[in-house]
Amino acid sequence: MSNDPLVIFTPSGKRGRFPVGTPVLTAARQLGVDLDSVCGGRGICSKCQITPSFGDFPKHGVTVAEDALSEWNKVEQRYDDKRGLKPGRRLGCQATVQGDIVIDVPPESQVHRQVVRKAASARVIEMDPATRLYYVEVEEPDMHDPTGDLERLGAALKSQWDIQAITADFPVLSALQTVLRKGKWTATVALHDAGTGAVPHVLAVWPGLHEAGLYGLAIDLGSTTIAAHLTDLDTGEVKASSGIMNPQIRFGEDLMSRVSYSMMNPGGAVEMTNAVREALDQLTTDIAKEAGIDTSLILETVFVCNPVMHHLLLGIDPVELGQAPFALATSDAVNLSAAELGLRALPASARIHVLPCIAGHVGADAAAVALSEEPGKSEDLALIVDVGTNAEILLGDTSRVLACSSPTGPAFEGAQISSGQRAAPGAIEAIRIDPTTKEPRFRVIGCEKWSDEDGFAEETAQSGITGICGSGIIEAVAEMRIAGLLDPSGLIGSAEQTGTPRCEPEGRTNAYVIHDGTADGGPRITVTQGDIRAIQLAKSALYAGARLLMDVRETETVDRVVLAGAFGAHISPMHAMVLGMIPDVPLDKVTSAGNAAGTGARIALCNRGARQEIAKTVREITKVETAIEPKFQEHFVNANAIPHATDPFPELSQIVTLPQVNFNTGGGDQSGGRRRRRRG
Amino acid sequence: MSNDPLVIFTPSGKRGRFPVGTPVLTAARQLGVDLDSVCGGRGICSKCQITPSFGDFPKHGVTVAEDALSEWNKVEQRYDDKRGLKPGRRLGCQATVQGDIVIDVPPESQVHRQVVRKAASARVIEMDPATRLYYVEVEEPDMHDPTGDLERLGAALKSQWDIQAITADFPVLSALQTVLRKGKWTATVALHDAGTGAVPHVLAVWPGLHEAGLYGLAIDLGSTTIAAHLTDLDTGEVKASSGIMNPQIRFGEDLMSRVSYSMMNPGGAVEMTNAVREALDQLTTDIAKEAGIDTSLILETVFVCNPVMHHLLLGIDPVELGQAPFALATSDAVNLSAAELGLRALPASARIHVLPCIAGHVGADAAAVALSEEPGKSEDLALIVDVGTNAEILLGDTSRVLACSSPTGPAFEGAQISSGQRAAPGAIEAIRIDPTTKEPRFRVIGCEKWSDEDGFAEETAQSGITGICGSGIIEAVAEMRIAGLLDPSGLIGSAEQTGTPRCEPEGRTNAYVIHDGTADGGPRITVTQGDIRAIQLAKSALYAGARLLMDVRETETVDRVVLAGAFGAHISPMHAMVLGMIPDVPLDKVTSAGNAAGTGARIALCNRGARQEIAKTVREITKVETAIEPKFQEHFVNANAIPHATDPFPELSQIVTLPQVNFNTGGGDQSGGRRRRRRG
Repeated sequence: MSNDPLVIFTPSGKRGRFPVGTPVLTAARQLGVDLDSVCGGRGICSKCQITPSFGDFPKHGVTVAEDALSEWNKVEQRYDDKRGLKPGRRLGCQATVQGDIVIDVPPESQVHRQVVRKAASARVIEMDPATRLYYVEVEEPDMHDPTGDLERLGAALKSQWDIQAITADFPVLSALQTVLRKGKWTATVALHDAGTGAVPHVLAVWPGLHEAGLYGLAIDLGSTTIAAHLTDLDTGEVKASSGIMNPQIRFGEDLMSRVSYSMMNPGGAVEMTNAVREALDQLTTDIAKEAGIDTSLILETVFVCNPVMHHLLLGIDPVELGQAPFALATSDAVNLSAAELGLRALPASARIHVLPCIAGHVGADAAAVALSEEPGKSEDLALIVDVGTNAEILLGDTSRVLACSSPTGPAFEGAQISSGQRAAPGAIEAIRIDPTTKEPRFRVIGCEKWSDEDGFAEETAQSGITGICGSGIIEAVAEMRIAGLLDPSGLIGSAEQTGTPRCEPEGRTNAYVIHDGTADGGPRITVTQGDIRAIQLAKSALYAGARLLMDVRETETVDRVVLAGAFGAHISPMHAMVLGMIPDVPLDKVTSAGNAAGTGARIALCNRGARQEIAKTVREITKVETAIEPKFQEHFVNANAIPHATDPFPELSQIVTLPQVNFNTGGGDQSGGRRRRRRG
Repeated sequence: MSNDPLVIFTPSGKRGRFPVGTPVLTAARQLGVDLDSVCGGRGICSKCQITPSFGDFPKHGVTVAEDALSEWNKVEQRYDDKRGLKPGRRLGCQATVQGDIVIDVPPESQVHRQVVRKAASARVIEMDPATRLYYVEVEEPDMHDPTGDLERLGAALKSQWDIQAITADFPVLSALQTVLRKGKWTATVALHDAGTGAVPHVLAVWPGLHEAGLYGLAIDLGSTTIAAHLTDLDTGEVKASSGIMNPQIRFGEDLMSRVSYSMMNPGGAVEMTNAVREALDQLTTDIAKEAGIDTSLILETVFVCNPVMHHLLLGIDPVELGQAPFALATSDAVNLSAAELGLRALPASARIHVLPCIAGHVGADAAAVALSEEPGKSEDLALIVDVGTNAEILLGDTSRVLACSSPTGPAFEGAQISSGQRAAPGAIEAIRIDPTTKEPRFRVIGCEKWSDEDGFAEETAQSGITGICGSGIIEAVAEMRIAGLLDPSGLIGSAEQTGTPRCEPEGRTNAYVIHDGTADGGPRITVTQGDIRAIQLAKSALYAGARLLMDVRETETVDRVVLAGAFGAHISPMHAMVLGMIPDVPLDKVTSAGNAAGTGARIALCNRGARQEIAKTVREITKVETAIEPKFQEHFVNANAIPHATDPFPELSQIVTLPQVNFNTGGGDQSGGRRRRRRG
């Protein structure tokens, strides 16, 4: 056995003997310990910080003396003076092994550090981004052995980082000579390596050591809203999150109306493509400003979106998606540059990755939900519903995963609702109706109090009470049903029938007044018969999609339900079940995954392996096309009632007793969902 | 031995036995016979035409019966009716083997057909372009097994052409769906495969069988002129050649003045880049129009150019090329798309290949000359001089190749010459001066007659006599020396000294009047002392570069000289030697290679293997930097005289006797080349 000192790394437990004088970084590399370094051990990047431990370690069988590492040196002192090192920290490239030693690698010094997600799911994101920084010392040009600056940069990456070959993004070439001279022949390279075996690609070069970091955008491009997370590609930290409305709404609120716009208007697809790209430019500029980060540092962007958004983003006319057989132009993941995609707020060389689509109606957003929620790894049968203008529905467990989408329309997002609005301060987000008095009380976004609590008026004075958002309208309809203001067909009773003057006539039907702010110059917020119909259509589509997957899977029940989507987290499971949005499961088996598609985008942004993983998963998913399944129409029609006429809800009866009312007097609207014509 | 019929292919001589009924195309493929097919044997592309031979073939040991091939079939008849088949031709995919048969594959049916170059060199170009056409039948989309159109196109290329994987140029994606439907699920794909192991890349897709062909541009981007050859990528045929002036001339006539322009003017490099790209767009549009070819069919372009042009084309500031150590931004070949390069007349997806540079002053044009003239394969020691604004000089044989460049300035191209002009109708291209009478006679471009022949005036009436082009000025100076109008230092004698009134005073020196057209409203064409000095500088630079390479090679002589360059073909070897442009060799050892750089570009355009070959050759060439070699200055000064004072020309004395004259009277200009300051 060698007499060399024993070096033990925690938390990995990796150990080995190394000659006295070996730098800790060298020992770590030889043992395959995950210790970061951008500068390659030159004592300038400070990424290799470690914490030595001293004393007795019976568990490891060593005693560590105070002089087990070399003395604190000038390089460390300089770094400490300039930037400050945490107490007990050393630089792994400077401290050398002098005796047996236990060394802890703190999370921030690990290359493949793990980022714990805030969401309920315990899954962590392992950092392994496609683009990383490398600091290099480049040889100066030599007239007697002429080679290009780029070729000498490549040689430096080969000798100093073992990167065999590179290509460079074209714009890098024009900046390279200035950068290398400014950095006195040292530079930091942002190198994109997709991990697929393709030659790594230089996206950017900075003089000397680049310390401003590297960032990525995870973008959930929805039909109604666009949500972005600006993420630090080193730590995985989300520096800013921001959302804007999709400006394509002016061309049509739901997907099929945008496809129609393209069919009816020559150049319509181009118009919509330009609109969304301009919005993305604005979003990029805004989010970078919010985080105080220069847009030139955003070198990776991942998009998730439904197929129509996918095609319109890529500049492909979505017309084929509007008619059977709903053929995608491309189903695999798309990789390209910001310049190719015409995104001008990003650097031209920034890499764009668009997740693969599952099918003509089941997009990259559903793939992202699958990546985030991993139904294929679930032991029990999970139904995952991503609620949006188009609902993405996944059903599966370890044996098999099925997917479909369902055109719910934008009602769940507060659009096409008479008093509807997006989730913003002033919007009613929760509502309760007293079954006896039929009086409502509610909460608005921006105020913790209910409307019948003291101080509500004062606290909402600034925002006002402006409308109802998605979660609010779901609760309103469910509460109206519970309070006996709606019959099972969805008809609103008259004042006479319900015994409350809040039910008042509106045309040939009735409306329920939640709040009348007209005296103070505010709006009058009502739920109309039209609103009820819109919600019925939306929830029937959602429910029918889920039922269709259950049919294909040959099951009558699911074990758990996950509500996902930008506002999925805000939906009350009880109200969703009263409304009949989701199949009947015990209430505690309904969980919220927040914006699972956005989370999937973040995972793909931070971990290049996840991109390969989801590409494989997508190929294995059973695709179900709702548009051509007669069963879907059948389920859709049957799901129109609140609760469903054909699907008894045993669980629901434990939550709430729904009144036996029937407001149909022969003259009202009872056609419900039957009028709805679906795509194509 | 099998009883199957014997099939013998000519000219390859490949043979094998095949079952009765085997299509000739199938037999050819199994034997590895080079028989073309774009449609994959579907009888629609007619690329697989073959000529069966009948009768006795004692050489091959077979007798071919009249029924050795299947009968002429409907597919062949339909093709013959529509397009016409040459007599005796059959379609290889239709005709099947019935008995022993000898089959000739005509050159136009060979994939790797060879194109004989018109130039003196015997080298042929083997057609193996990076981009080729493939006809495919694509599966229709299936709702129950949803995949993208691109993925089904990839599957078709895999099953029908054994192409394992593809990527697609982004703009192809937006056109793909329309194309596949228009072609009823058949399409022709232009697939770029550099042959380097990278995944092949789809550049364009056309519905059905694409019959309009595929074209490429070989462009020699010179400091003064830009020359392009539009080439059929199937046959290698040059469909049109065209040249325009480089508009960057307005920023400086020679390379160093353009580098200075960039140094002195912020944004100057961008201005010059834009200028040359606009000119390239114009040239592309013009040449395609001339050839009657749609620019959308030009999917490959190869550039050769000197390093400064190379950087300005690519949008890289050439400032580093203006000062030691003359560092290139990149020395390897550059591959990119027309969109990336900002060339708008080409399709966005067209591939651009820029040949590698040899050194900071020895560019891709020199690499192209090396590719075309192959000094490394020469048994005798060859000096190859590419005459242009910057001369590229190669010296070598099978043992070693050396290269340098020399800044001759634009005088050889007729620029900076008082009566100079580019080679165009009306320009004097050849001149003789009677040694006795000192009277000139000349020939102008566009007229075969000499100026003292009958009919000359009539035939030049339209063009006029407008100036002197490059080859004309070289002959003029040499002839003036032979006629005793110049002394060895380059001084023009007075009327008194020379005995001809054509030598007349101009300022403090003299000029020789070649032609006075003022009476007819035309120009007065003279050779001034300034013109002589410009030519002396140019030829001294050229000669000094060649001598420097000879020094490094440690030789006093070369075996042969090749004059290349856009106007290299027009230079009279005798006059070049009288002038002292080139070292002394027997006259019959001076040959012209025409535009060797342009030919090299054509070779790289037509054969992807040549791109790898020249990349390797370039790395092996010994680079000599004239700018830092004191010997270069020495040679330059010594080469000023006509002929050289220090280099006796034994060969020259066999050609012509140069008069012993000396016109120096103390007041003239005799500083010659000594005033010239070189770069940096």
